[in-house]
Amino acid sequence: MTYQALQPSDKLLLGPGPASVEPAILRAASLNVLGYLDPEFVTIMDETMELLRAVFRTSNELTLVVPGTGMAGMEAAVYNTVEPGDKVVVAVNGFFGERIATIAERAGGEVTVVRYPWGQAVDPSDLVKVVREVRPAILACVHAETSTGVLQPMAEITRMAREYDCLLLVDAVTSLGGCPLEIDKWGIDACYSGSQKCVGALPGLAPLTLGPRARAKLAARRTPVASWYLDLTLIEKYWTGNPRAYHHTAPVNLIYPIREALRMALDEGLENRWARHLLNARALRAGLRGLGLGLYSEDDVMLPPLTPVLIPDGVEDAKVRTAMLNEFGIEIGGGLGDAKGKIWRIGLMGYGSQRRHVLLVLTALEQLLLRFGHRAEAGAGVAAAGAMYDAAAKAGS
Amino acid sequence: MTYQALQPSDKLLLGPGPASVEPAILRAASLNVLGYLDPEFVTIMDETMELLRAVFRTSNELTLVVPGTGMAGMEAAVYNTVEPGDKVVVAVNGFFGERIATIAERAGGEVTVVRYPWGQAVDPSDLVKVVREVRPAILACVHAETSTGVLQPMAEITRMAREYDCLLLVDAVTSLGGCPLEIDKWGIDACYSGSQKCVGALPGLAPLTLGPRARAKLAARRTPVASWYLDLTLIEKYWTGNPRAYHHTAPVNLIYPIREALRMALDEGLENRWARHLLNARALRAGLRGLGLGLYSEDDVMLPPLTPVLIPDGVEDAKVRTAMLNEFGIEIGGGLGDAKGKIWRIGLMGYGSQRRHVLLVLTALEQLLLRFGHRAEAGAGVAAAGAMYDAAAKAGS
Repeated sequence: MTYQALQPSDKLLLGPGPASVEPAILRAASLNVLGYLDPEFVTIMDETMELLRAVFRTSNELTLVVPGTGMAGMEAAVYNTVEPGDKVVVAVNGFFGERIATIAERAGGEVTVVRYPWGQAVDPSDLVKVVREVRPAILACVHAETSTGVLQPMAEITRMAREYDCLLLVDAVTSLGGCPLEIDKWGIDACYSGSQKCVGALPGLAPLTLGPRARAKLAARRTPVASWYLDLTLIEKYWTGNPRAYHHTAPVNLIYPIREALRMALDEGLENRWARHLLNARALRAGLRGLGLGLYSEDDVMLPPLTPVLIPDGVEDAKVRTAMLNEFGIEIGGGLGDAKGKIWRIGLMGYGSQRRHVLLVLTALEQLLLRFGHRAEAGAGVAAAGAMYDAAAKAGS
Repeated sequence: MTYQALQPSDKLLLGPGPASVEPAILRAASLNVLGYLDPEFVTIMDETMELLRAVFRTSNELTLVVPGTGMAGMEAAVYNTVEPGDKVVVAVNGFFGERIATIAERAGGEVTVVRYPWGQAVDPSDLVKVVREVRPAILACVHAETSTGVLQPMAEITRMAREYDCLLLVDAVTSLGGCPLEIDKWGIDACYSGSQKCVGALPGLAPLTLGPRARAKLAARRTPVASWYLDLTLIEKYWTGNPRAYHHTAPVNLIYPIREALRMALDEGLENRWARHLLNARALRAGLRGLGLGLYSEDDVMLPPLTPVLIPDGVEDAKVRTAMLNEFGIEIGGGLGDAKGKIWRIGLMGYGSQRRHVLLVLTALEQLLLRFGHRAEAGAGVAAAGAMYDAAAKAGS
């Protein structure tokens, strides 16, 4: 067994995540390692929490990064809020909603799943009937469904959670940093995300915030949290305790890049960042339509960081994605679950959300579609995208 | 809130971990990000598993890195082997043994804890009485107790596990890569470690291996694993499935450094690496005795990667460690649990285990002890260490 030193290719990551990362953020992963209780590192943790609160738009004290991937964030949010026997209603319109339900069941919750068609938003006027009947302790939904590219309008759901006095748990893995998300203003009680998408950092951490109502429920538990590793009553003693109490050895060199990514996101300005993601998504969608392609989700629920495009009849999913990766050095995503083989998912997240990436992926896609039997008018994709940018520039000037 | 770009100091990490990292391994964290299902990344995962099997000395197929810290490794090992109602015997002689017991209880195990004095090894002739009486499904112990610097002799415990037909679960967080550990030869059924110690990589991953008996128990479970995130039946579908099935987004830029660290450990040769850790530990212990300091563990159970030294009467723990960090740029560890305030823990792990680090930490310690009231003969520490190196060179030539 003889291996050479690693030299991963330089690829443009335009799939569902991880996204391509700003070079300065990537370099932060190789900064000097510090001890997990070194006062210098504790300051970096404090800064990370403060930056994260600003990006989550919350004053929640318990706002930190969980030492695992976005799925660890999901498990932490669910396990710390759901006690065995708790009634949980999960609104499901895609793969990640199903996962919340699975994990809530594993936490011992009595779970009611309310399903809506993939590619569409959850219908609050229907959901409320179930909430009224079940009277759950926890209502869960996905703000940004990564499997379908649907952004859930939250106003009616947040109102429902207040009216029926249930904790509102929200998956924001693909929305945090990429489109409006207001933890405090909207009244979300528990929310988690991933580091590797619109936040713009490396994969492996889960930003998480827990509001006062969720913390009160956690403090009043009769049973310990099912996971010791993700027990927030223990994790918070390390992140906010005085003195800090050892729980785990922090993944120091992943915390550096997310601290840098959060700092740069706020330097850009959250509203500017959301607008950038929106504009590039609109240009991409215009370009895809220009290529004669259909979209899996309607414009009124479009999720700017992730665009789901229907694979045209007669074109093979894997062939296009493989050629895109090997010949163009661009990764786009396939479908998950029900959408497997039906859609591609093109992510424009964080550093990935750039005009030049939109034009490049449209150009590459046009060439591959032509090869694999889908006819499009030459240059129609980039032309439509270009027109969208021009219109936006004119409107902004 | 305005922050500058991060510039963590360059510190020499000689505590209980994370350890200082070989610069080439540190740089690997900033290599190009790949998608978690990119065939190029899947190859890197395959290589990592193969390298890890060689370092664990096992042919276990289920040998991978868990996407979390060493504590995630502990939880994964315990949760996947222990079912609610299972009898578990945990031999405890320090902080991490207690943790195994806590986590086994959280998994629903009927846990019997057998305690031995901190700083000493577990006594198998006593332990066997409990095992004979309880007849546990799982017997757990700590190979390298990071809180006390004790290396547990394993021969009698492995024999006991076979004789009484229980799964043997072993914590090797501080031993893997730093001292002999033979999963297959010794018959260990489940073992986990951390990436940031003698393996020589960055914190945030937990190497883990599960043998055929443990896998059979996992396959025969009546209840799902209590943690979805750490459910190895799901994680292995991502690591070894054909095709790979999405479970979580791999922490790609932590897997690069551990792949490099494992490769370099095998290039060095495991026996050479163990010998290096042993020699430097013996020199350090000689030097500490030369400074008139006592050790918390006896030489016959010394854990080469981590040396526990008694804080001399009248010397304040925190003052010395703070001055060591701020004035010398060297981190050493304090005590945990029962040993808090009584000992310092000096780690010589991976890249940290070097002759020059031994001499440096002894020199710095001498100067600080003098300042804080402990009198030692000038130069006696480094002289004793130097004599140990000279004797070893003579014996080897």
